[in-house]
Amino acid sequence: MMNRFELIEQIRKKKSFLCIGLDTDINKIPSFLLDFQDPIFEFNKRIIDATHELCVAYKPNIAFYEALGPKGWESLKKTVDYIPKDIFTIADAKRGDIGNTSNMYAEAFFNTYNFDSITLSPYMGEDSIKPFLNFKNKWSIILALTSNKGAFDFQKLRTDDDSFYFEKVLNQVSSWGDINNTMFVVGATKTKDLKSIRKIVPDHFLLVPGVGAQGGDLNEVIKHGLNKDIGLIINSSRGIIYAGSEKDFDEKAKNAALEVQEKMAKFL
Amino acid sequence: MMNRFELIEQIRKKKSFLCIGLDTDINKIPSFLLDFQDPIFEFNKRIIDATHELCVAYKPNIAFYEALGPKGWESLKKTVDYIPKDIFTIADAKRGDIGNTSNMYAEAFFNTYNFDSITLSPYMGEDSIKPFLNFKNKWSIILALTSNKGAFDFQKLRTDDDSFYFEKVLNQVSSWGDINNTMFVVGATKTKDLKSIRKIVPDHFLLVPGVGAQGGDLNEVIKHGLNKDIGLIINSSRGIIYAGSEKDFDEKAKNAALEVQEKMAKFL
Repeated sequence: MMNRFELIEQIRKKKSFLCIGLDTDINKIPSFLLDFQDPIFEFNKRIIDATHELCVAYKPNIAFYEALGPKGWESLKKTVDYIPKDIFTIADAKRGDIGNTSNMYAEAFFNTYNFDSITLSPYMGEDSIKPFLNFKNKWSIILALTSNKGAFDFQKLRTDDDSFYFEKVLNQVSSWGDINNTMFVVGATKTKDLKSIRKIVPDHFLLVPGVGAQGGDLNEVIKHGLNKDIGLIINSSRGIIYAGSEKDFDEKAKNAALEVQEKMAKFL
Repeated sequence: MMNRFELIEQIRKKKSFLCIGLDTDINKIPSFLLDFQDPIFEFNKRIIDATHELCVAYKPNIAFYEALGPKGWESLKKTVDYIPKDIFTIADAKRGDIGNTSNMYAEAFFNTYNFDSITLSPYMGEDSIKPFLNFKNKWSIILALTSNKGAFDFQKLRTDDDSFYFEKVLNQVSSWGDINNTMFVVGATKTKDLKSIRKIVPDHFLLVPGVGAQGGDLNEVIKHGLNKDIGLIINSSRGIIYAGSEKDFDEKAKNAALEVQEKMAKFL
């Protein structure tokens, strides 16, 4: 459980707004870990031990756990339980369904797995998002303009008043919740749009994936995205957790995280 | 594994294009089932035993299983394994993510859980859908115009050429796959739009939820949605599986399914 004030406090204390994506793939982790009873959790544990002073959030992408069947969810639960309580947790799940079903998803991630927040797809509209916003002290992080190429297919279509479709999403969704329970996903590869995004949601936190493996530029994101309360959580997944592939992978991850954190510190 | 030809054959044989939604909620099932080791599976098993001759598809909504933690996924796996092989299975998951992650979701539902198909949200565009289409003999069912009120928030926004946003989705997505691996979700509460939808995708199968509890009209859907290969899978969840709440719930479910199937038979 972490409110807006506490999140900003953590950012200022650690001089970091780094989120580390725990997209842990059984085929990519160092092979010596495969001898452990739960290699996925063992990998995450060591990454967390090595990096928790350098980041303010961890974001497991749920697909990687779901693909492993029921035992993947065990690894996920152990991982979330292991994350220190002063670090913000994000279930990168991109869920969204009709009301009674969205409520089940909210139960799953906010209660069963005890995440602070979840990423959501806005396609199904207000009654698909509201059930998540009804949970006290929990956050909804809604897809606005994503980092991938496919973002151009629908998110950047023009509507009849010439605004982009993702701008309609920002406008509408920001009126359903407030800056204390809503954030938006904006890809680091879309920095040209950050200026217009900040006009629509000047005060909201933005979760920014796509730095690193996907080619987004950290300095550009900070330059155009920072607001008076920082307002940014920048995610790196593969660039940090797979920085090394041997026994010292956790040390390599720490160094990679440190490099990003030091860049961030200059802006705080 | 079921291809288009086999699906149509099943529909003609059973004189039914009914899909039963296995939205199994531990708080709604008859209380005597709670004494079983896996009440959720026990409920599904009895529903399947009672109804499998009257429907051509089962659609578990994944939220209901996810909310129960790892053991929910065990119940889901047992359920899918129990469904007779001549019945089409739909993971109602509404997933979608960047390419490498969508591939993990496809692995999860197509391989780990062995579903024939999965529902997907189109918001993130082509590279979020393509990984699913790359799986042979599996189906992607993409949200177009959903049954809920929130469908009006974004799906029915006008684009700059005056078409609806969901029509752009139909146009684009239908060009990524074909009628042998792609279907679309159209809510039974949106029958007025079925005519224009059939102009864009005359030959695709449509998965139609929203009959029953959500108020959609079966006859209207059939009248405007049927094509030369039938082209409809109509889902009912709560109206069938919760038709009874006592020991004879399975018999009540069978009667409720029979009532729908007999209406469908008239059109075949």
